[in-house]
Amino acid sequence: MTKRGRFITLEGGEGVGKSTNMQFVVAWLEAQGLEVVATREPGGTPQAEAIRRLLLDPAPEEKLHTDAELLLMFAARAQHLAEKILPALERGAWVVCDRFTDATYAYQGGGRGIPMERIAALEDFVQKGLTPDLTLLLDMPQEAAKQRLESRLRDQHSQRDRFEQEQADFFHAVRNAYLARAEQAPERFALIDAHQPLTSVQATIRNALAERVALWH
Amino acid sequence: MTKRGRFITLEGGEGVGKSTNMQFVVAWLEAQGLEVVATREPGGTPQAEAIRRLLLDPAPEEKLHTDAELLLMFAARAQHLAEKILPALERGAWVVCDRFTDATYAYQGGGRGIPMERIAALEDFVQKGLTPDLTLLLDMPQEAAKQRLESRLRDQHSQRDRFEQEQADFFHAVRNAYLARAEQAPERFALIDAHQPLTSVQATIRNALAERVALWH
Repeated sequence: MTKRGRFITLEGGEGVGKSTNMQFVVAWLEAQGLEVVATREPGGTPQAEAIRRLLLDPAPEEKLHTDAELLLMFAARAQHLAEKILPALERGAWVVCDRFTDATYAYQGGGRGIPMERIAALEDFVQKGLTPDLTLLLDMPQEAAKQRLESRLRDQHSQRDRFEQEQADFFHAVRNAYLARAEQAPERFALIDAHQPLTSVQATIRNALAERVALWH
Repeated sequence: MTKRGRFITLEGGEGVGKSTNMQFVVAWLEAQGLEVVATREPGGTPQAEAIRRLLLDPAPEEKLHTDAELLLMFAARAQHLAEKILPALERGAWVVCDRFTDATYAYQGGGRGIPMERIAALEDFVQKGLTPDLTLLLDMPQEAAKQRLESRLRDQHSQRDRFEQEQADFFHAVRNAYLARAEQAPERFALIDAHQPLTSVQATIRNALAERVALWH
């Protein structure tokens, strides 16, 4: 019987360096000889990416109601779990996902103010108890993250998506909700101070990964 | 204070004559001097219609998982309620909707086999107790409905959507689930035998409407 793979998520607000560190996590795990499936939320499959386009549309014709936004997040997640994440874990692959349900608590709960128990109800509905085995939370002071986001948008000449358009108090609430999540589940979370030189950030990530890999093998 | 409007839904499987009778219902209510908002599900607002396109896509790149389909239905419904149905009812308009949550029980519950209590959980989550004041269920034997659907598709040279592509056992389960819903809430439902000449069908609908209008005024 194949040993079930592990499910690792990368979390954090805008501008904390998720993309760069995502690549690092995948490369490090592959270097250990593991099969790795790298994916992201919302999205990860054709139908879920179509839902992502609705969610991130920078200039929607009509404002998306908070409950509709939340249900779309979980619709995309149900599709992603059924079509990609669960089959990969079952065949023994490790799945590394750029954002998952902690982001829903942070953005829709913290940012939009949806009561956390409404999110928990949908989490139970869709995930039936599944949670990540390890969550790397990249955290940095808000002003630093803002500067990094602005610099990235300028370099890539890219338009802000619907979430990136939000204001300081939104991002403040997102960060606090993430930190509260980490505090509630310290055994699952590795809190990474992302406001250090990249080599230090990645040394911290490597240590968190190595510790878990040793534990799980 | 404005008197709250009433919420009427029209339900039934493919080919039972919903479109024709929808127009009749709207025209009859308007003739009573009522402000009527005619709408449909899934859809009814720009964002909800975008979700409808995902749901009905006749040739999706990837099969939509049943839970994702169900969550998309309720995401569209949350948007439709917040942006169109509830504001209309609050200003005193009557809302006539081509399909609503009974269709979710019939199609996703009966047709797809999702447990009814999972649908009820999302209904509570999104609607917080709101149900239609009157539901007109158009019913006819399956063979007759099938012939009518085929004739319409031929006349309009239109492609079957993702639901219209389903097979006989799916439609059989949809019809049975609709009839079970009507049996559980006889005070809300008017069961209309749609397998009669149109004038008879519409006389039955008119009687059902007139009775409620008299009661509610």
